[in-house]
Amino acid sequence: MKIVLLGSGRVATQLGLALQQAGEEIVQVFSPTQAHASALAEKLRALAVSQLSEVRTDADLYIISVKDDAISELASSLKVNGIVVHTSGSTDLSILAPSSNQIGVFYPLQTFSEQKRVDFSEVPLALEANKPEVLGVLKKLAKKLSRQVIEMNSEQRMILHVAAVFACNFSNHLYTIAQQLLASQNLDFNLLRPLIAETAAKVQQSLPGEVQTGPAIRKDEKILQKHLNLLSKNPPLQEIYRLLSQSIVNLP
Amino acid sequence: MKIVLLGSGRVATQLGLALQQAGEEIVQVFSPTQAHASALAEKLRALAVSQLSEVRTDADLYIISVKDDAISELASSLKVNGIVVHTSGSTDLSILAPSSNQIGVFYPLQTFSEQKRVDFSEVPLALEANKPEVLGVLKKLAKKLSRQVIEMNSEQRMILHVAAVFACNFSNHLYTIAQQLLASQNLDFNLLRPLIAETAAKVQQSLPGEVQTGPAIRKDEKILQKHLNLLSKNPPLQEIYRLLSQSIVNLP
Repeated sequence: MKIVLLGSGRVATQLGLALQQAGEEIVQVFSPTQAHASALAEKLRALAVSQLSEVRTDADLYIISVKDDAISELASSLKVNGIVVHTSGSTDLSILAPSSNQIGVFYPLQTFSEQKRVDFSEVPLALEANKPEVLGVLKKLAKKLSRQVIEMNSEQRMILHVAAVFACNFSNHLYTIAQQLLASQNLDFNLLRPLIAETAAKVQQSLPGEVQTGPAIRKDEKILQKHLNLLSKNPPLQEIYRLLSQSIVNLP
Repeated sequence: MKIVLLGSGRVATQLGLALQQAGEEIVQVFSPTQAHASALAEKLRALAVSQLSEVRTDADLYIISVKDDAISELASSLKVNGIVVHTSGSTDLSILAPSSNQIGVFYPLQTFSEQKRVDFSEVPLALEANKPEVLGVLKKLAKKLSRQVIEMNSEQRMILHVAAVFACNFSNHLYTIAQQLLASQNLDFNLLRPLIAETAAKVQQSLPGEVQTGPAIRKDEKILQKHLNLLSKNPPLQEIYRLLSQSIVNLP
């Protein structure tokens, strides 16, 4: 399959590398910034293009992997016969309608780093398409990359994305808050690393509701009050502590 | 060293097992509930006692590992010559003063499960004591169990505990929220497990502030608004989303 990659960010990079490793041919990498296009194209042994008019129209698959609010404009300017997909969790399939009559979604659920290479076989891929034939093509490709391939509609995918924001983006921010609290007492973040690793490890086998620990689930009002008092100098932090503790206390 | 363990919960159990493995002698396990005392005492090949009057007064170390609000009463009823410590993150050292003139804190920073055995060598131990000699004894013991032993005062320990609540207890609760969101669309929690594992893995090398991803750090207002709309049927959840996103957006 001849694939054109539109985008050069973290998702485009990791997906491009995984596709290449699976033996697919990336023929072009498009980015409006020539340097970005070139940097990724070089890794993928593809041609770099920075003008949309230079994008080949005879490829089999076009993967739009750009910031969510740039998808619409790109899809409106692209007119091709091949399959066009985007990789966004919270963007409707229909946004791609202007670009082709074969459209789909290829959403990899993972947090991608600048440097760290991700094992794509462990990355769930959520697929959607406007036609069964298109879905078939995407499924076949997805299964070459990942062990977890699932079809879902745009509504389900958005819920999945919101869930990922809670489980990943917000969790990471709580690590940041914890790190800042430690720094305020000259304590090293290393103290928390084993705890963070174990917290994530526990839910690989169990459901998180079964392994909740801490003062809120024990309804230990005295400790909760002590912690709230300690955070009184930082009202936004205190409010996050209060709200999350309340949410735990309210669990059925 | 002859050790008496007062308590039979998750921390007492895991700590007792680790001490036994390190070659220490647990002579008694005290719990007001005889069955609990017996169950743990059997594992530790110790004597079970359910009356405080039966606790030996000639032991070298007494470890009080009970619910935070039960420490004070226990410490007031205990009169011994050996060292008395508690294992609580948010309880002052001074609460132990009535029990002995050698007092300390032995706080293991980890989330303990009912079943899963914890590798204690990876559990940071925060120590405090009222005398250098007592600290010396605790340090020697702690180093037998863990690679990360650190002395800190009660104020630092409370900050460490609050940080742990954010990094562990609250993160786990976010996993629960994510799991419930998925369940509402009949999606399996397995979809999120690799993401959760990777999120925790990333901060084992990096600082969390350096690897934050998601719509809030990109200041992607459109997606944030979409997600808030989606959560409008669940105001407490919407408020958590709003507050955490705002806290990420406000990062310097």
